[in-house]
Amino acid sequence: MNEENHVSRKHPRAESIRIRERLTRHVKTRVLALAGLIAHGRGEAFDYILGEETTPSASKAITAAAAVLLLAERPVLSVNGNVAALCARELVELSRVTGAKLEVNLFHRLPGREEAIEEVLREAGAEEVLGVEGSALARIDEVFSDRRRVDPRGIYAADVVFVPLEDGDRTEGLIRMGKRVITVDLNPMSRTAQFANVTIVDNVVRAMPLLVREAERLRELCRNELRGIVDAFDNGEVLSEAMGTMELRLRALSEKGVYIEPRSRRA
Amino acid sequence: MNEENHVSRKHPRAESIRIRERLTRHVKTRVLALAGLIAHGRGEAFDYILGEETTPSASKAITAAAAVLLLAERPVLSVNGNVAALCARELVELSRVTGAKLEVNLFHRLPGREEAIEEVLREAGAEEVLGVEGSALARIDEVFSDRRRVDPRGIYAADVVFVPLEDGDRTEGLIRMGKRVITVDLNPMSRTAQFANVTIVDNVVRAMPLLVREAERLRELCRNELRGIVDAFDNGEVLSEAMGTMELRLRALSEKGVYIEPRSRRA
Repeated sequence: MNEENHVSRKHPRAESIRIRERLTRHVKTRVLALAGLIAHGRGEAFDYILGEETTPSASKAITAAAAVLLLAERPVLSVNGNVAALCARELVELSRVTGAKLEVNLFHRLPGREEAIEEVLREAGAEEVLGVEGSALARIDEVFSDRRRVDPRGIYAADVVFVPLEDGDRTEGLIRMGKRVITVDLNPMSRTAQFANVTIVDNVVRAMPLLVREAERLRELCRNELRGIVDAFDNGEVLSEAMGTMELRLRALSEKGVYIEPRSRRA
Repeated sequence: MNEENHVSRKHPRAESIRIRERLTRHVKTRVLALAGLIAHGRGEAFDYILGEETTPSASKAITAAAAVLLLAERPVLSVNGNVAALCARELVELSRVTGAKLEVNLFHRLPGREEAIEEVLREAGAEEVLGVEGSALARIDEVFSDRRRVDPRGIYAADVVFVPLEDGDRTEGLIRMGKRVITVDLNPMSRTAQFANVTIVDNVVRAMPLLVREAERLRELCRNELRGIVDAFDNGEVLSEAMGTMELRLRALSEKGVYIEPRSRRA
């Protein structure tokens, strides 16, 4: 299927369109499930309302996330198709900086998908990839859907799990198992955003390089200093601020109503 | 690809998930392009913020849309993959009630897509379908992407075009040609929503049956009464109200911050 648009660089949504093309290509490589495209669309909408930039409260969450990862005993970075397609390199870097393992963790385990995602991670420099080749043998009870399978060396045994762009059922399952959960989710009202211990309300493409840099910076701190950062962090406040930012942007726009130069205004 | 989730009916998003499954099935029938899945996700997010119900201002826009269609000399209903997958039957009904022609009008003209969409419309009872079998011979200049092709008997000659879930470039192209444009778009800030003469900010699945019913009701009125409805309609006000509704909902949520029952709240 050729869905290339030959979109001009001047197009108001050129960057969004390039990312979309990257994702649709990854449906063909099997990295992405079709449902991943719909999820991406939801993220686009929330990002648009958020103003398409990393907010101060997202930066606070990024700092807390880095501290939680560095303090963890057995941290794991959970990788699904969307995350692999969008930021495999940063995941591998984050894994190196924090000592966290990489685990492929899929909602839709279609034939060939695990392998395709593993390949993307290995191409990005990953040496060990959990959750593939039948190694996802442990089971976690989910809430509304089928049971999930996870790697007994990875998520199953982890104390901290980083699950960017995750489904609400799975996040709830992890929380119920007593895991500390960090997520990246553009919808502060999603169940994942609400259940997680640290929610970075930001586009994963913007947040991941910042998270890697922050983990590098905080690596110099002692454990007590890291604990201080974590104790001072309030996820409810971060979620509230994200919704507040969206609300303010909508208010400013709604006062105008029509703000794009119109060519005709009669009904 | 089998992406069935076996989702429980009690799942908080069960209805959304059923619609998603319907759309992913239509990728296989070729009715939907992959980009259509991303677009659907954007709509889901805006619908969620809007409260997933038809607002009073959307109802006003539906009434105005029905009046504009009934007053039109050569109205055309433009059908793309998402609309065909979600409400083919209602499109055929609207065509009958208003005398508007149906035209398949695609951004992504992939092999077999026109035919697949035509088939969906014919199964829903359509007798005439324009824009297929090489009949889309007239060209319209678009703004940022390739030229579009339209049927000289349909959109090209139309005075009023109903383009639900349309791309911004195409809507702008139609407005520049002097067409009166009616759309359904959940994002009141999109270029389509902003450029159109009548914008129904609602889920097309909810709006279409209401639009059909409204067209049936207004058919009893004389042209002067219909003109009165159109003259009293203000699209800027409708867009402003839609953004205001979203803003209020976000404000109510942001005051709570965390509102889904949490199992753990430490960072």
